[in-house]
Amino acid sequence: MAEQKATPLLKDELDIVIPTIRNLDFLEMWRPFFEPYHLIIVQDGDPSKVIKVPEGFDYELYNRNDINRILGPKASCISFKDSACRCFGYMVSKKKYIYTIDDDCFVAKDPTGKDINALEQHIKNLLSPSTPHFFNTLYDPYREGADFVRGYPFSMREGSSTAVSHGLWLNIPDYDAPTQLVKPRERNTRYVDAVLTIPKGTLFPMCGMNLGFNRDLIGPAMYFGLMGDGQPIGRYDDMWAGWCTKVICDHLNLGIKTGLPYIWHSKASNPFVNLKKEYKGIYWQEDIIPFFQAVKLPKECTTVQQCYLELAKEVKAKLSEIDPYFTKLADAMVTWIEAWDELNPTGPGASSAAPAAAK
Amino acid sequence: MAEQKATPLLKDELDIVIPTIRNLDFLEMWRPFFEPYHLIIVQDGDPSKVIKVPEGFDYELYNRNDINRILGPKASCISFKDSACRCFGYMVSKKKYIYTIDDDCFVAKDPTGKDINALEQHIKNLLSPSTPHFFNTLYDPYREGADFVRGYPFSMREGSSTAVSHGLWLNIPDYDAPTQLVKPRERNTRYVDAVLTIPKGTLFPMCGMNLGFNRDLIGPAMYFGLMGDGQPIGRYDDMWAGWCTKVICDHLNLGIKTGLPYIWHSKASNPFVNLKKEYKGIYWQEDIIPFFQAVKLPKECTTVQQCYLELAKEVKAKLSEIDPYFTKLADAMVTWIEAWDELNPTGPGASSAAPAAAK
Repeated sequence: MAEQKATPLLKDELDIVIPTIRNLDFLEMWRPFFEPYHLIIVQDGDPSKVIKVPEGFDYELYNRNDINRILGPKASCISFKDSACRCFGYMVSKKKYIYTIDDDCFVAKDPTGKDINALEQHIKNLLSPSTPHFFNTLYDPYREGADFVRGYPFSMREGSSTAVSHGLWLNIPDYDAPTQLVKPRERNTRYVDAVLTIPKGTLFPMCGMNLGFNRDLIGPAMYFGLMGDGQPIGRYDDMWAGWCTKVICDHLNLGIKTGLPYIWHSKASNPFVNLKKEYKGIYWQEDIIPFFQAVKLPKECTTVQQCYLELAKEVKAKLSEIDPYFTKLADAMVTWIEAWDELNPTGPGASSAAPAAAK
Repeated sequence: MAEQKATPLLKDELDIVIPTIRNLDFLEMWRPFFEPYHLIIVQDGDPSKVIKVPEGFDYELYNRNDINRILGPKASCISFKDSACRCFGYMVSKKKYIYTIDDDCFVAKDPTGKDINALEQHIKNLLSPSTPHFFNTLYDPYREGADFVRGYPFSMREGSSTAVSHGLWLNIPDYDAPTQLVKPRERNTRYVDAVLTIPKGTLFPMCGMNLGFNRDLIGPAMYFGLMGDGQPIGRYDDMWAGWCTKVICDHLNLGIKTGLPYIWHSKASNPFVNLKKEYKGIYWQEDIIPFFQAVKLPKECTTVQQCYLELAKEVKAKLSEIDPYFTKLADAMVTWIEAWDELNPTGPGASSAAPAAAK
């Protein structure tokens, strides 16, 4: 533990964003790993409720009143009473890297019984390149003990910069409500010792439970949409961010890795409540996926913001016929970028060199 | 072992194809797993050398004289003095499934120390669907204890038929000569407990060391090209088959899985010899990969043979400018299909219903 504290990787370049903390055991369990870092907590519900953060943590906490005060009318793009509000934390951070985690995710153990330092693995994933253009059968070729296999083109071995590190979950898998209902007892016990790049042109379901990303490279695409209070769907916040992010990463030649690290997902959310939140999304995604598979961003879009605004335009044009919700969402996507640029005036990259002071 | 013999999966529907056997320990080690199956051994070198197969195995053996006799002038498409000749075995088989393995590959152990029944895992891979159109972060959703994660479109959960099962290697990884030279001591010790579908549109380096496939679905694409004696390259036989196979699987909506099972690859081949065989391939593949990434098969091609002949045409048109070798290879691709159709007159699927008798 002393060693952990002595040399935390990227100490001044990474913020941990947590949507809310209902459970103080959560922070206690992560203390050896999280204490060296700065936390941004975005409270998702009633602002009058006070979240007590145990001593020793360096943190800032935002509730709805803070969001309204900071963003003014643009606060409309941040979800209320839903963990999708966490993306506000991405926006106010001034660090190069973000790690976000849910408060029902605990420290998992590797097959030898050792506690997994999830953050350390995410950082390793983010600091090594990705291979989106050709599949390597021995998984991440940049990992110790691995390399590119025979037949892997040499010109592609430099790889692409990694923008996202998508971690997985032991115990309760991230299932939708129908699968939860059908398989109430299923637990994920399989520890797959792999990290791999999701190939270019392939979409994936990005889960926000255990997620790292390079804010400078992809931050403005990590918008978690309009969910929860007053919205027709929930539990599609991270999915939405994932689809948009993947399309933009593919366009900008950035990589997304998935696999290690695991966290221990402690409890399944209520499948009946989830079904209510999800059912429109389950239906809509049958049109949304083909939309994202087909969308082409113009060459002129060379920044994440430009790509994202172009996507917003396409969403409005192509998805609004599914439901008026998508018109509202497309507008919120534009508002999100405006708010992002307001809080990050010099654009991505401005805060990457010098560590920002904790607020 | 008794149980193994009592209920071998697909006993009458699968042939094991081995390019040659220099080492009788190989068959002894695999005896509990291979003995219930029919073996097709294709001798790659001097026909006067006699391969002694231990008692108890059901096999047929072909040497160069047999290939010449059976194929006549079309035998020119089968490589000589190179393990690429194994594809002759795919052609003469009448079974629905093929498993092919090199004679320096032994039985590996899983992390619990148990012998891995590679064939059984390949069969599981081939009998369950693939998911080429969308990535599942918990790997093969059809495996026990796994499923599709939240956000995976329900309309895609039926999957696609699996045409290929690509297994991996513990101990000596399948590296090219430059990597072998640079990392002489590297061993693959990481057992990754996963099977996954290689997404549509993504090429991969297919290794023929430990490979299963559905002959009815993809057999005619499994041509291992012109290698070895009289040819300018070697060690690109399986790669060539893999590129062609992947492009055709993508076109015909078939899946390719990679990952489990592992075999124990016992010894590295000579890197200096390999370098001599590979160096042109290493250079050429920089043009070959973009060619296969860009090639589009017309909708009218609805059988593997049609797709393959179309590919041969494209190879001649686009790759011949790299080297006259590709003109020869394109012609051999056509000859291969002619020979295939001659030996399999009713087309793929003819032998799938009724098990063929061992010769």
